[in-house]
Amino acid sequence: MNRTELFENIKHKKSFLCVGLDTDINKIPTHLLSRENPILEFNKAIIDATADLCVAYKPNTAFYESLGSQGWEILQETIKYIRANYPDQFIIADAKRGDIGNTSAMYARTFFENLNCDAVTVAPYMGEDSVTPFLNYENKWVILLALTSNKGAFDFQLTEENNKKLFEKVLKISQTWANQDAMMYVVGATKADMLGKVREIIPHHFLLVPGVGAQGGSLQEVAKYGMNSECGLLVNSSRKILYASSNNDFAEKAREEALKVQQEMKMLLEKKNIL
Amino acid sequence: MNRTELFENIKHKKSFLCVGLDTDINKIPTHLLSRENPILEFNKAIIDATADLCVAYKPNTAFYESLGSQGWEILQETIKYIRANYPDQFIIADAKRGDIGNTSAMYARTFFENLNCDAVTVAPYMGEDSVTPFLNYENKWVILLALTSNKGAFDFQLTEENNKKLFEKVLKISQTWANQDAMMYVVGATKADMLGKVREIIPHHFLLVPGVGAQGGSLQEVAKYGMNSECGLLVNSSRKILYASSNNDFAEKAREEALKVQQEMKMLLEKKNIL
Repeated sequence: MNRTELFENIKHKKSFLCVGLDTDINKIPTHLLSRENPILEFNKAIIDATADLCVAYKPNTAFYESLGSQGWEILQETIKYIRANYPDQFIIADAKRGDIGNTSAMYARTFFENLNCDAVTVAPYMGEDSVTPFLNYENKWVILLALTSNKGAFDFQLTEENNKKLFEKVLKISQTWANQDAMMYVVGATKADMLGKVREIIPHHFLLVPGVGAQGGSLQEVAKYGMNSECGLLVNSSRKILYASSNNDFAEKAREEALKVQQEMKMLLEKKNIL
Repeated sequence: MNRTELFENIKHKKSFLCVGLDTDINKIPTHLLSRENPILEFNKAIIDATADLCVAYKPNTAFYESLGSQGWEILQETIKYIRANYPDQFIIADAKRGDIGNTSAMYARTFFENLNCDAVTVAPYMGEDSVTPFLNYENKWVILLALTSNKGAFDFQLTEENNKKLFEKVLKISQTWANQDAMMYVVGATKADMLGKVREIIPHHFLLVPGVGAQGGSLQEVAKYGMNSECGLLVNSSRKILYASSNNDFAEKAREEALKVQQEMKMLLEKKNIL
């Protein structure tokens, strides 16, 4: 999917919501556990309940890997299900990969060719040749970690060299590898006040913003500092939607949560005169 | 495996070689391709041919993930094979993971509980809470990326704050999370001259050193700057051993390559009065 298509979807759905599929066998409703494939069933129900309210799905690979080879099959089946039924969805593998060139090329093959994702999250620590193999695919995206939503983000990401923080250096240098048509950045909602700084460096890129919901970030703050004239935001919510209820009505309640977020997003898009 | 056991194995084998199992279906001998499970067959043959010459195996997860769920089964079977036949081997999942706390906990479960590895490589960019979930396992290890062997290492790892480079900051700060009995560091052989600086900060930790062989690093230089009184080194070689021959004699030739390295290592250990 290219940038124009993504923006069109945002306007059409009046939403820039990304639903994180961090599906945990220990947290899904117990009545599903007797089914043949509880996690896939859960994912399908969540997707059916939310697809008209969001523009992206973000399976977190850790949750599938923890189930071994069966988990990889569930991940594959989940992506196939989205592609078959909701072809306008942008699919992000939240994998946070990054290795020397020939290894990153393997990861790129996995996520773009085999799993047919639109984007993959990549860690910047190993530099250019760990990222560029992911950029050799047309209309596929690298979402590079810049400023993450967790407490540990302060440990290294704010390291300061010549009055410039490491995450700013990551933003600056990585722009020489690809432009806003091939790269996005992770900027956590819990650091919304720093979004202004981020926007000074990369006014046009899309940002993937985790941390709204369970992690405590505010959607209004994110939009205030981070939204640009083409929205430029994908805001992720995982746990708050997935686990809105642990009963039979889990999908319905997930939809209610997603709808609340979508309604707020619609208002924010209108305020910015995007709709 | 704990640090004393690892050091005993090094003295017993007269080797600090780690064989990287970066097994690529496009590079293994073509006569194996007609077998039911070519990659597993290849791995078993390589392991049988090298196990008395090395102290560790390091499967690179990217190569297995690129084969989907079947690849995960091969990874699992490879590890089982090592555990069953060569229980003194230290097994490293070269996965370069790292995410927010609850996700890192999932990755830890995958590599330590399900796959039964001794160690996993972890990227430091997301800070403390992305690393500590891996430290909750007795006699299991985090191998944190410090200074990597690739060209892109220069992009961010040398970022300088108060006359201290980022990789030095990673070494310093991460020492407050765990000591040399639970943490090792990746320091590339292609940056051997910087090993002296690394050893000033962490004299006692084990270092996992990639980049000898195909990437061009020198074993002698690594030993000169990096070896401590308990060796403190695991030097990895992947492609040069795995693909020493593409014919029927691939395992034999792999053994010859491994033997050459082991003989040099023996000499270096003797020189340091460790044997």
